[in-house]
Amino acid sequence: MTQPDFDEVIDRIGTHCSKWDDMQGAYGVCPDEGGLAMWVADMDFRPPRSVQRAVEDAARHGVYGYPGSNAPYHEAIAWWMEHRHGWKIDQGWILTASGLVNGVAMALDAYTQPGDGVIVMSPVYHAFGRVIRAAGRELVELPLAIRDGGYRMDWSRWETMLNGSERMLILCSPHNPGGRVWTEEELRDVADFCTRHDLILVSDDIHADLVMPGHRHRMIATVVPEIRDRLVTLTAATKTFNIAGAHIGNAIIADDDLRARFKAALMARGVSPGFLGMDMVAAAYSPEGAAWVDALVDYLDGNRRLFDDGVNAIPGVTSMPLQATYLSWVDFSGTGMSTAEFTARVEKSARIAANHGTSFGVGGDSFLRFNLATPRTRVVEAVARLQDAFADLQ
Amino acid sequence: MTQPDFDEVIDRIGTHCSKWDDMQGAYGVCPDEGGLAMWVADMDFRPPRSVQRAVEDAARHGVYGYPGSNAPYHEAIAWWMEHRHGWKIDQGWILTASGLVNGVAMALDAYTQPGDGVIVMSPVYHAFGRVIRAAGRELVELPLAIRDGGYRMDWSRWETMLNGSERMLILCSPHNPGGRVWTEEELRDVADFCTRHDLILVSDDIHADLVMPGHRHRMIATVVPEIRDRLVTLTAATKTFNIAGAHIGNAIIADDDLRARFKAALMARGVSPGFLGMDMVAAAYSPEGAAWVDALVDYLDGNRRLFDDGVNAIPGVTSMPLQATYLSWVDFSGTGMSTAEFTARVEKSARIAANHGTSFGVGGDSFLRFNLATPRTRVVEAVARLQDAFADLQ
Ligand SMILES: Cc1ncc(COP(=O)(O)O)c(C=O)c1O
Ligand SMILES: Cc1ncc(COP(=O)(O)O)c(C=O)c1O
Repeated sequence: MTQPDFDEVIDRIGTHCSKWDDMQGAYGVCPDEGGLAMWVADMDFRPPRSVQRAVEDAARHGVYGYPGSNAPYHEAIAWWMEHRHGWKIDQGWILTASGLVNGVAMALDAYTQPGDGVIVMSPVYHAFGRVIRAAGRELVELPLAIRDGGYRMDWSRWETMLNGSERMLILCSPHNPGGRVWTEEELRDVADFCTRHDLILVSDDIHADLVMPGHRHRMIATVVPEIRDRLVTLTAATKTFNIAGAHIGNAIIADDDLRARFKAALMARGVSPGFLGMDMVAAAYSPEGAAWVDALVDYLDGNRRLFDDGVNAIPGVTSMPLQATYLSWVDFSGTGMSTAEFTARVEKSARIAANHGTSFGVGGDSFLRFNLATPRTRVVEAVARLQDAFADLQ
Repeated sequence: MTQPDFDEVIDRIGTHCSKWDDMQGAYGVCPDEGGLAMWVADMDFRPPRSVQRAVEDAARHGVYGYPGSNAPYHEAIAWWMEHRHGWKIDQGWILTASGLVNGVAMALDAYTQPGDGVIVMSPVYHAFGRVIRAAGRELVELPLAIRDGGYRMDWSRWETMLNGSERMLILCSPHNPGGRVWTEEELRDVADFCTRHDLILVSDDIHADLVMPGHRHRMIATVVPEIRDRLVTLTAATKTFNIAGAHIGNAIIADDDLRARFKAALMARGVSPGFLGMDMVAAAYSPEGAAWVDALVDYLDGNRRLFDDGVNAIPGVTSMPLQATYLSWVDFSGTGMSTAEFTARVEKSARIAANHGTSFGVGGDSFLRFNLATPRTRVVEAVARLQDAFADLQ
């Protein structure tokens, strides 16, 4: 593999790219005047050559009709799960959704009814709450505790917070935002909780491959195999390889009944994968893709250290130490400023679009989430601007 | 525009293409032994150069993150509807689904409840019944009558067939299979029926652009504007330009309340378009695309005449005269053979995979549907094989 060049600055402005082209509408930060897009969770990098080749091959063939069965796609997923995650799956367990927001929605559709309670650990990826509410389910937010600067599950408190209408728990593993890689012990606690309260466990492992050195992500199915009759694992290559636009993700479900219900939901909603996504994923989940991910994680880790050092030097500002993901969760509460004020400084003075912590639910108010998956020069620039925007605190 | 070469035989075998690669599993017709794929409704042609360029441009840019707002996509749809269909729409009326099977499913989701009756005119595109049933709605099949060799609506009979639980009618316009272009008078009758029975009307106009010389498709919104408060029109560029793999289609809804409900369904099910589809459609709905469609229809019309002449020469076999679509609906009842026998002759002797009429619902038993959107040499070959397979009838 030729070494990927993550330092290359690729202009995405004007490419119908949400992160850069929708930034002004969403945050008032103008890309053409040096605004930095550090919100939407995609990367400013090209995927590995193997994925590029898949797109080029499709363009060369040039017929874009209905996709058919795609054994290499299923084989590649099984290979990746075994070689990168030590998880032996049966290819027949794989069901494919139109991305994982759709995957979460299909799980809600398959296993819950309007009015049922659906649990998340807050703050958490905002689309969970959005689809739960849109589907008429009750959003049950169990607030994560903060210990040693990172999120911890708070079981004794949470045990008192249920009312019996809960049917499902959606785990974000690794956690977005905050970047926790849950330990085996934590995963066992989740499984016990779900068993005790008879909950379907949907584990969204979309960030499983983006794990910082020194940490190890575990697929919950490998840690607590006995919960297979209530477990739905959601995985995707889209975050890992920056191909979110392909809108493809998988539900891997070992239990026949659970799988049949998920499949029926896909059928009832007319959901199936598009032509290119399967070929892109098959090309990504490969030895070449694996080497690329290793290089990527190394690069992201460098960005992370640089960013952490820079923002933590600002009095009252603290980033959570990232164990996984490229999404830095930064707490401004120590500045004593209102959410409106620190947000205005970031958007208007530093000209950076970062996700508002409030959108991640309970516990997010004093935070902003910064996407670090961009060439290092931009991270350096962002740090300088943030230090400038809060210079009066020095 | 350089003249498109529809005569070019493009090998799709082994490209994860449903039509050619799933044929053996579905029909026992082997592509490698000269089997002809005439089932799945896509074409063995490349789309216009403008669409190819969109894919090549995406490959060249090479970053496949989350797609953002795409004004050219919405402008192109509005332009196409006005210039090709005389329908002036507001771009704000457009909602985008992951293809039109998904679009139909989202309409069911938005406007009906489990147990509600949903009406189709049978025989009709099989996925309607599949999603209606999968969603737990009642499939209500109103049988089309046959007059002068083509399908006719049968209002006096149909008026007696409802039980009051019906909430929606799904119109296939033009009709698949059978290829009827509904007249203005017929469209008015549909609108009256929906008004009288208080039904939401979902008009699936996916075949609207593939209309044979001498016929004119009308968007029902232009014929009966007064039903806008119960009308959802589904359109797509995917059949027209052979880009079904992109999984993208639109619901165009003038009524604010109906539109809000459809949008809520998309949100609750986590449905949004992938990165490439919007750019492909924007490139397709263009003057270059329009010229290509004109050439395509001309070619399809040639295939159709050739096929009709050939199969109608077989005693007892009759194809419905196609006013639209490239899907020839062939009646074998005059042969006196059982469905099993004529099907076996087509699949085993002629080695042709054609859709079984039974899958289209009531009235389909004595039919097979043949896809004629393939290079002419294949149509010639198919006719010769069919004449051979039924030679004993001469
Ligand atoms: C936890 C989690 N799940 C799902 C998604 C989105 O998945 P998709 O793009 O496949 O809909 C994200 C995107 O950031 C995410 O962080
Ligand atoms: C009437 C009709 N609607 C919808 C579809 C499928 O649409 P899509 O590929 O966008 O799901 C077809 C495909 O043949 C069709 O004939």
